[in-house]
Amino acid sequence: MTAPHTNVQKISEMASRHLSSLSVDCVVFGFHKNEMKVLLLKIPYKDEWALPGGFILRDESAENAASRILKERTGLDGVFLRQFHVFSDPGRVKPRDHRDNLTRMNIPENDIKWLCSRFVTIGFYALVDYTRAVPTPDEFTTRSEWRDLTDPGMLMMDHRVIVNTALDTLRLQLNNLPIGYNLLREKFTMPELQKLYETILGRKLDRRNFQRKILSYRILLRLDERKTGVAHKAPVLYRFDYDGYHRALEEGLKGGF
Amino acid sequence: MTAPHTNVQKISEMASRHLSSLSVDCVVFGFHKNEMKVLLLKIPYKDEWALPGGFILRDESAENAASRILKERTGLDGVFLRQFHVFSDPGRVKPRDHRDNLTRMNIPENDIKWLCSRFVTIGFYALVDYTRAVPTPDEFTTRSEWRDLTDPGMLMMDHRVIVNTALDTLRLQLNNLPIGYNLLREKFTMPELQKLYETILGRKLDRRNFQRKILSYRILLRLDERKTGVAHKAPVLYRFDYDGYHRALEEGLKGGF
Repeated sequence: MTAPHTNVQKISEMASRHLSSLSVDCVVFGFHKNEMKVLLLKIPYKDEWALPGGFILRDESAENAASRILKERTGLDGVFLRQFHVFSDPGRVKPRDHRDNLTRMNIPENDIKWLCSRFVTIGFYALVDYTRAVPTPDEFTTRSEWRDLTDPGMLMMDHRVIVNTALDTLRLQLNNLPIGYNLLREKFTMPELQKLYETILGRKLDRRNFQRKILSYRILLRLDERKTGVAHKAPVLYRFDYDGYHRALEEGLKGGF
Repeated sequence: MTAPHTNVQKISEMASRHLSSLSVDCVVFGFHKNEMKVLLLKIPYKDEWALPGGFILRDESAENAASRILKERTGLDGVFLRQFHVFSDPGRVKPRDHRDNLTRMNIPENDIKWLCSRFVTIGFYALVDYTRAVPTPDEFTTRSEWRDLTDPGMLMMDHRVIVNTALDTLRLQLNNLPIGYNLLREKFTMPELQKLYETILGRKLDRRNFQRKILSYRILLRLDERKTGVAHKAPVLYRFDYDGYHRALEEGLKGGF
C-alpha cells in the first residue's frame, strides 16, 4: 500500500539525528467565536487524531524542538509556549498498533523500529492567534485542523490525557499568569475578556468580581474608545498594557501571600 | 586510583537497563530550626555537591524512578514528590570534566561512555520530614548531607539552576497548594506555620493577613491545647485537617477566579 499524501520520504535515520527515548508533544490552543480550539493532525487509515509533536535533535533543547515543531505546524513563531508535564507511563504506546500503521506508510524498517521504541514525551502548551495560524500536517499525516476542545474526536495513545492535563495547567495558571495576549484581538471589551476566562475555566464568573480582579493586576489599558456596531450601550474597549503584561509574565500576578 | 568508599561495583551495563538520554534529579527540601535545607551528595575528588538523581529503568515511569531514588537516598516513601521542570540545554554537561572523575572511580569504560552522553533531566521536588530522613550516598558518592538552602556550597553542572527553579516553583505553588504536612511537627503554632511560609518565600509576611488567608483555606484544625514551656502567653496549637488538606492538594486552594 502506498501513502501518496504523506511525506515519508523525508524520514530516514531517525535514530542518528535525534535523542532516543524522548519526544515532544504540543497542545496548541486557539480561541474562536467563544470556543476553545485545539490543533490536531489526522492519522492516516484511522479515525484518530494526534497532537503536533516530534523529536529532539542531537544539539537542540526541548524548548527549541517545541518551537520548531510549532512553527512547522502553524507558521507562527514567538508565541507563548511552555512545558507543563512529562508523560512517562511505560504503557503509553501500543507498539503493535503503531507498527501496523507505520508499515502501511512505507516507512523504512529501521525507522519503524526506532519509532516503536518506548518514548517519554514532554508536553508543551501554546496559546496562538487562531486567525494567523496556518494548520499544516507533518510527515506522518495528511491533514491538520482546529478541533473543538470539548469534542475533538478520538485521540491516539494518551493524547487525550495530555490535552486534559494542559487544560488543567492553563486553568491553574490563570491565577498566576496573565492570559489573552495571543487569544484575543488587539482591542477587546471587558465582556469579551471575561468570556475567554469563562471558556477556559468551563464555568460562569461574576461580572463585578471578574472586573475588579482583572483590573487589580494592572495588565490592562482602558482606551478612550467604545466598540462600534453594537445594538445597545457601546462597551468600552481595552488593550493589554505591554509592560504590565510582561512584568506579570515574569513575576506572576500579585494574588498570593 | 581506587575508590574504596563508593559502590562502583554495583554499576554495570547501565545502557541496557535504563532509558537513554533521560535522567531524574530530585530537589529534596527539609525544614529545620527555621531554615530550609536541601539534601545533597558529595562528589568524590572534588569540592562539589550533586542532587540525588538517577536513571529510569526500561519498564519504569519517571515518577516511580524518582520515588525509588528518594527512598534509596532518604529511607522515606510516600512523601510529597512532584515533577516541576525538564532541563534540556544541550550544554548542561561538560563531558570532559565528567569523564575525568568517572575514570578515577574505576567505572567500566562502556558505562562511562553512556554516563557521558547527553542527558535531559526531569526535575522533581520533594518535601520531607527532616527528622525522619536518613541521608544515604549513592554508588557515585561517599557522603550525603542536609545543606543550608541559602549556602549549600558549589553544585555540579546545572544543579544550582535546578534547585533555584524548584524553589521558584514551590513559591508559586504556595498560592495553589497546601504545604507544611511533611515539614512541620504534627502540632504547631500559627507563628511556626507563618515562619515556614516566610522561610520559603524569603520575606516577612503580615501576621493578620497570613492568619486570615491560611484559615480561609480550611486546611487547619484549631486544637483545644496550647504550647507548653513558652515564657509568655502560651500560643494555641493547630494541626492539619487531613481531609481538607488532601482535598486542597487535589483541587487547589480557592484563591483564584
